Amino acid sequence: MEKKETIIIGGGLVGSLLSVYLTRRGYRVKIYERRSDMRKQDMVAGRSINLALSDRGIKALEEVGLMDDIRKICIPMHGRYMHNADGSTAYQPYGKEGQFINSVSRGELNCRLMDLAEQNGAKIIFNQKCESIDWERNEVIFQDMANFQPSTFNFKLLFGSDGAYSAARLTHQLQHNRFQYSQYYIDFGYKELTIPAGENGTFLLEKNALHIWPRGNYMMIALPNMDGSFTCTLFFPFEGDPSFESLDTKEKVTSFFKETFTDAVALMPTLEEDFFNNPTASLVTVKCFPWIRDDKFALIGDAAHAMVPFFGQGMNCGFEDCSVLHALIEKHEDNWADILPEYQAVRKPDGDAICDLALHNFVEMRDKVADPKFLLQKKIEAAFSKKHPYKWIPLYSQVTFSPQIRYSDALVNGQKQEAIMQQIMAIPDIENKWQDDIVEKMILEKLLG
Amino acid sequence: MEKKETIIIGGGLVGSLLSVYLTRRGYRVKIYERRSDMRKQDMVAGRSINLALSDRGIKALEEVGLMDDIRKICIPMHGRYMHNADGSTAYQPYGKEGQFINSVSRGELNCRLMDLAEQNGAKIIFNQKCESIDWERNEVIFQDMANFQPSTFNFKLLFGSDGAYSAARLTHQLQHNRFQYSQYYIDFGYKELTIPAGENGTFLLEKNALHIWPRGNYMMIALPNMDGSFTCTLFFPFEGDPSFESLDTKEKVTSFFKETFTDAVALMPTLEEDFFNNPTASLVTVKCFPWIRDDKFALIGDAAHAMVPFFGQGMNCGFEDCSVLHALIEKHEDNWADILPEYQAVRKPDGDAICDLALHNFVEMRDKVADPKFLLQKKIEAAFSKKHPYKWIPLYSQVTFSPQIRYSDALVNGQKQEAIMQQIMAIPDIENKWQDDIVEKMILEKLLG
Repeated sequence: MEKKETIIIGGGLVGSLLSVYLTRRGYRVKIYERRSDMRKQDMVAGRSINLALSDRGIKALEEVGLMDDIRKICIPMHGRYMHNADGSTAYQPYGKEGQFINSVSRGELNCRLMDLAEQNGAKIIFNQKCESIDWERNEVIFQDMANFQPSTFNFKLLFGSDGAYSAARLTHQLQHNRFQYSQYYIDFGYKELTIPAGENGTFLLEKNALHIWPRGNYMMIALPNMDGSFTCTLFFPFEGDPSFESLDTKEKVTSFFKETFTDAVALMPTLEEDFFNNPTASLVTVKCFPWIRDDKFALIGDAAHAMVPFFGQGMNCGFEDCSVLHALIEKHEDNWADILPEYQAVRKPDGDAICDLALHNFVEMRDKVADPKFLLQKKIEAAFSKKHPYKWIPLYSQVTFSPQIRYSDALVNGQKQEAIMQQIMAIPDIENKWQDDIVEKMILEKLLG
Repeated sequence: MEKKETIIIGGGLVGSLLSVYLTRRGYRVKIYERRSDMRKQDMVAGRSINLALSDRGIKALEEVGLMDDIRKICIPMHGRYMHNADGSTAYQPYGKEGQFINSVSRGELNCRLMDLAEQNGAKIIFNQKCESIDWERNEVIFQDMANFQPSTFNFKLLFGSDGAYSAARLTHQLQHNRFQYSQYYIDFGYKELTIPAGENGTFLLEKNALHIWPRGNYMMIALPNMDGSFTCTLFFPFEGDPSFESLDTKEKVTSFFKETFTDAVALMPTLEEDFFNNPTASLVTVKCFPWIRDDKFALIGDAAHAMVPFFGQGMNCGFEDCSVLHALIEKHEDNWADILPEYQAVRKPDGDAICDLALHNFVEMRDKVADPKFLLQKKIEAAFSKKHPYKWIPLYSQVTFSPQIRYSDALVNGQKQEAIMQQIMAIPDIENKWQDDIVEKMILEKLLG
């Protein structure tokens, strides 16, 4: 097999993982990363400190043999722990007994993936910003971030895994006829805040859950870290009342949090500093097409399909991209003229679907989970699913725990389920009747219809 | 009143019209146009030679007093004249007796609008390409297309009316946080072809109609010109069979046209030359937000909302933008801090709506108008509308002949009507029953429901 010279633009989670698949297959891989080597520095605070790793991502990490290692830095989260405005709490398991998602440090995971990439022979060159791509000569030009010198490198294969604001995508787009492109920002930003560990690294909230403070038009969530702390993320309007704009003094922040997130604020001693020191980041959905160019270039991960974080699938989808691509490399025996079109044909509808599902899930998380009727609906679904596991997999489980189901199929299945459940929830006095045989029969009938 | 220094980027149909409204209101207006003065040269063949001017556009031209002049170069088109694949023809009026759209030369209309702009005191500077805008210093930099020299100009007010590929929009976008943007190309391109006049300038097809050759996945249309000729436009897939790609020899073009557009091809002596000499152009929908910046900048026309041409509303919508903006200038007495936000709040939903309606209408034109059941549906709607003119205005008439109805309302009304008509068309034997009282009663009931 020819050792194809491969360049990967972006050494984040997806680029690093991709290089492992490729080097093991015999490709000579160089990764060019815009930032400096994160393994040599302290972590940057305030930007997506932890992520929720679930089955699609795990499948890929298992394929490259890294999951046993990663599992040691994972904290299982078995369900959503809701902190309601009235002080009450509620708990909703994510799936069946034994199913959970994992809170993991983005930085730690990225460092281990870079180590694995290098162990497998990939070279990572840091501080290199992608400037342009010459599609005729198969050359990429990078600029050194230290001395601003440009360097030109040849490739046979090129991947853009440089995230939502991908430079690779931009140069692809600008030199492409009829390029389909959309960027859609929601009117909400996010800011990371901290609940530190208690004495001796104890967790001051339930450790094995994803905490949500749903407040209708906005919400805060918290994920556990290995050191006993929680990283909170406030998803909040940019403008209006309340908003990032309106909370413009420490007093206003504290008073707002005391009133709105009463139980949490007691655990947030650095709230004011965090709020004004940490950046307010925006949330974008990017869709584009095509993802590929001839037999030599593909976008992958966020660069191909940036999504909002509300289904916890951004990284998992990117890892699955790599896994799917790898299966196609094997299927087509390294014939990239066949691999890339099929990669695009398979993954584009799935990328679109999870982008849409993620947007949709924001409403569910910030608003619906505080609604007893919604929680009852999820309970009815769970009970029916337990009795008829092959007839009904709840949408969340399809997306999160069922890598065998494509995102695009999950989207369609979920719409059908939602239509059925709306009819079920419309049954008068459903609160008391939901365990009756007649409800089960109705669902079964509607599933056939 | 302060004479505000105003720059308009783009001297096309919309930019020229806008300048007339502004100069009459006392603004000092300069228009910078990338191309050279079209009034001094022959027309460029092959790109949108004629357009369909209808009531929204006419309203604006009447406001500036140009319509009497323009009417002399308009050819009324009272309906769609369908040329079916089996050789049969059908005719469908666009509206009520006396309602029609107008075939008008884009070039002629633009020239007269430029004349009017200059008569009102606007200066048009040609061969000036917008390079960048400095939003802090209120400066635009243009490059002279002849000597490549840059020039910098100050503005108090700035408009981007430079079309679907607006340079003003791009520089606005690149310097804006969270800019919403989408560009969507359909898989079809278009090419202009010609049916010349007969002897002594006679029209070789029915003069007062828009001709359509609907063929399911593609179509050709023809609009009359003042000289007796028709400009045909083939809307055709870029790829596949048949497509612009597959028709790659003169023989293939001729044989395809003979088989597919039999009656037309006999009237197209220069078909082969036209096909290979005229460009194949693409069709894009562009949506973006925001359209404005502070109290000093707005996008208008295609630059704000580029649409596919299938509802014949691109120019009409751009002219309506100008008319709406002018009404707001009067309402807010030249206070641009109030004018621009309201302009955007009013016109953005309408721009989105007509973009969506235009995309949707492609399916209707290329496919449905060949379906007797669809034509029956339109007949039933027309009959009901004639009897109950205040209860039912057909969607086409709302968009085309009813400037008092906003595009966004027309979209919603149209969806409601379509849902009702689908139920009516599902009545068994509707072909024979449609004039029964019971059908009228059903529609009336559903309208209330």
